[in-house]
Amino acid sequence: MGSLTPELAAELSAMFGPRFSAAAAPREAHGRSETHFPLTPPEAVIWPETTAEVAALVRACAAARCPVVGWGAGTSLEGHALAVRGGVCVDFTRMDRVLAVNAEDMDAQVQPGITREALNTELRATGLFFPVDPGANASIGGMAATRASGTTAVRYGTMRDAVMGLEVVLADGRVIRTGSRARKSSAGYDLTGLFVGSEGTLGLITELTLRLRGQPPAVSAAVCAFESIDGAVAAVIETIQMGVPMARIEFVDAATAMAVNARSGADFPPLPHLLLEFHGTEAGVAEQAEMAGAIMAEHGAQGFRWSARAEDRAKLWKMRHEAYWAIVGSRPGAQAIVTDVCVPLSRLAEAVAETQADIAAGPIPGPILGHVGDGNFHAVLLIDPESSAEREAAKALAGRMAERALRLGGTVTGEHGVGMGKLDHMAAEHGAGWDVMGQIKAALDPDNLFNPGKVVRQG
Amino acid sequence: MGSLTPELAAELSAMFGPRFSAAAAPREAHGRSETHFPLTPPEAVIWPETTAEVAALVRACAAARCPVVGWGAGTSLEGHALAVRGGVCVDFTRMDRVLAVNAEDMDAQVQPGITREALNTELRATGLFFPVDPGANASIGGMAATRASGTTAVRYGTMRDAVMGLEVVLADGRVIRTGSRARKSSAGYDLTGLFVGSEGTLGLITELTLRLRGQPPAVSAAVCAFESIDGAVAAVIETIQMGVPMARIEFVDAATAMAVNARSGADFPPLPHLLLEFHGTEAGVAEQAEMAGAIMAEHGAQGFRWSARAEDRAKLWKMRHEAYWAIVGSRPGAQAIVTDVCVPLSRLAEAVAETQADIAAGPIPGPILGHVGDGNFHAVLLIDPESSAEREAAKALAGRMAERALRLGGTVTGEHGVGMGKLDHMAAEHGAGWDVMGQIKAALDPDNLFNPGKVVRQG
Repeated sequence: MGSLTPELAAELSAMFGPRFSAAAAPREAHGRSETHFPLTPPEAVIWPETTAEVAALVRACAAARCPVVGWGAGTSLEGHALAVRGGVCVDFTRMDRVLAVNAEDMDAQVQPGITREALNTELRATGLFFPVDPGANASIGGMAATRASGTTAVRYGTMRDAVMGLEVVLADGRVIRTGSRARKSSAGYDLTGLFVGSEGTLGLITELTLRLRGQPPAVSAAVCAFESIDGAVAAVIETIQMGVPMARIEFVDAATAMAVNARSGADFPPLPHLLLEFHGTEAGVAEQAEMAGAIMAEHGAQGFRWSARAEDRAKLWKMRHEAYWAIVGSRPGAQAIVTDVCVPLSRLAEAVAETQADIAAGPIPGPILGHVGDGNFHAVLLIDPESSAEREAAKALAGRMAERALRLGGTVTGEHGVGMGKLDHMAAEHGAGWDVMGQIKAALDPDNLFNPGKVVRQG
Repeated sequence: MGSLTPELAAELSAMFGPRFSAAAAPREAHGRSETHFPLTPPEAVIWPETTAEVAALVRACAAARCPVVGWGAGTSLEGHALAVRGGVCVDFTRMDRVLAVNAEDMDAQVQPGITREALNTELRATGLFFPVDPGANASIGGMAATRASGTTAVRYGTMRDAVMGLEVVLADGRVIRTGSRARKSSAGYDLTGLFVGSEGTLGLITELTLRLRGQPPAVSAAVCAFESIDGAVAAVIETIQMGVPMARIEFVDAATAMAVNARSGADFPPLPHLLLEFHGTEAGVAEQAEMAGAIMAEHGAQGFRWSARAEDRAKLWKMRHEAYWAIVGSRPGAQAIVTDVCVPLSRLAEAVAETQADIAAGPIPGPILGHVGDGNFHAVLLIDPESSAEREAAKALAGRMAERALRLGGTVTGEHGVGMGKLDHMAAEHGAGWDVMGQIKAALDPDNLFNPGKVVRQG
């Protein structure tokens, strides 16, 4: 693997002027991730402004065999954008425009650097919104690259469903467009779907066509508690089977409820909770909340409360909104390692219960929360950053969670992606299918230019 | 390209006994398609019963460089399963079992040869159904291979959305499993999505995990007429923007309405019609029908009628159910060539109007109907099968429809697939992206074993 030679640095500097930098500060800023991976600075950072510039820098780097790693908002939890084999980091923050909003078609064309929140701000007046919500204010390009999802996937799908088409710069500098603005197509291999979730290893996304949704005329929210995770999961299964089109179905465990109480003086019972959100017409969200409430009650829900009034909704969802920071704050000075597995709903209760028991048997606190409508949950493992023993114990816990998810018919990552944290589980999840991913990588990026060290088997 | 040598025939005959045949009758039956392509018999037909048998026959054929073409129910409209370069046809009708139904997870594992109707018959008692409905009683494997959709895609999506995972036999005989039973995953490249729509050119699908839906507690249907296609499309756009979750939104043009009148003595006005179907709770479908009716009326709909009673629903949808055969019957002795384009909704009215004008200027009748909620429509071109002039005129019309769809931001095939009919338009639709498809084909099937002559650029 090559690296940034003085000749290449000079060439890129001439092309990009001050939008190329090999200075320490930007390199360090692009060498950090939001989790426990060590600082891994790239050799330089480039801020392109056009697709043509991206293609030009890729051709220059390809000629010098210098790795190219894309960068969105840096909110990845698995170290996706860390330049583990050196090379240049391509920061897309200057390519952050909405290029077109087609209200009649409910789609938009955007550049990859725009963040989810900025996009929704721009859409506000149109009556439309972009529904995928991973929590962090991630860039849309990064969300596509990691096939992100989050709280609304149960209703609106993941980035797999939200991306209709892409413009991509390939490893030889060719620029292709995938998909179209048609709602569906049978015209050959689904290249859009191939690049979504490829984590920058097959190409750099320079434009996206996104499917938007209509802002719901009414929203209601609900909360309730259960004696056990089993009752909560059984209620969720039945609610989904009955066709209640819930927009969000979030789970927090008893440890999380207690962390929220400690942080904000709330008095949630120390039990697992479900938090629900409904989108629809005024009559529709009322009917949905009533149906869901009845099903929850049959499965032992306590204190089911719902409201369509904005301020009451905020109160009902307070626990979910505060959950992450309440968990992190529950062990002062701790570093959070957030796991991410997804299993079939029928196996979710046992997956959570086994994980809770596994965590309880060790030294590390790990409250659990998740997107229960998808079978996706996270343990927030709180380690002493100075303790290598705790770090190893957390890694071992995360590893057992991944193995458990596979044993139960699920996946080692529901929404965070492979990055650096899940590479060791890819063989177990995909078997020979992982080799097929490697064949595709070799076909499209034979010199391993794009984000080397990620996703596929490493030679 | 090799072919079925006597040695390979002997080897396959020894492996499969009477489930291998090189006799004329089965070869001819597997050399026909449902449309105008000439008889193209394979050199032999094999009926495997297990994945291991499929892998064994693939290895044997690979060693002899003999093409392998999959066969489901033979309902494709673009000649996908015709063995244009010889070789053996693999008929999956003996692999037609439901392997598992997981009601709590709302999924099922099935073999590829089961048909859509047989699957739904088996699911009836579970409260679940498989929603993708292309009209024909296609095999599930074939539907996955062509990324089929149909009348319900506007609500439930296409095969892209309905297939959660696959078992696939690759060109070197390896068997891989893609996806999982989890609702979502970020674990690497989306191989499931890559094989769905690959038309048997990358591997043979031997098992599918399907996403099911809950049978709606209530269904209602509606019909209305419009003075012009513009009003109908504007009404559809607004209805979708308002979030009315319609299960079906079908369009038929005035020519189709008149064909139905002629066939069955109905008295539909000679105008474009919309046919709607709503799925939900009893209150929900009533609300949906009322909202849709109000919006339709604002856009000039005439005679909006809806009902939730089964027998009335059948009457309201009579026109759509009879449409295809009424069209075919409107020119006795004619052969139908069914086109298939899909455009953004905002361009649908002009796409249909231009197509109608183009058809009206020529000698061939071509009533139009379509899945208007997706922007997908078909002209049923009725040619005299003895007239090469009409056949050429129809091909030219279809070609102009494809070009028009691309000019309007759409795709040359919304749901029928590439097969033999759309190969000439792939370069125009995908540009350099088509070469990327070729690179993937070359990586996974370097000897061009699987369904040669389809999807990718031909050497």
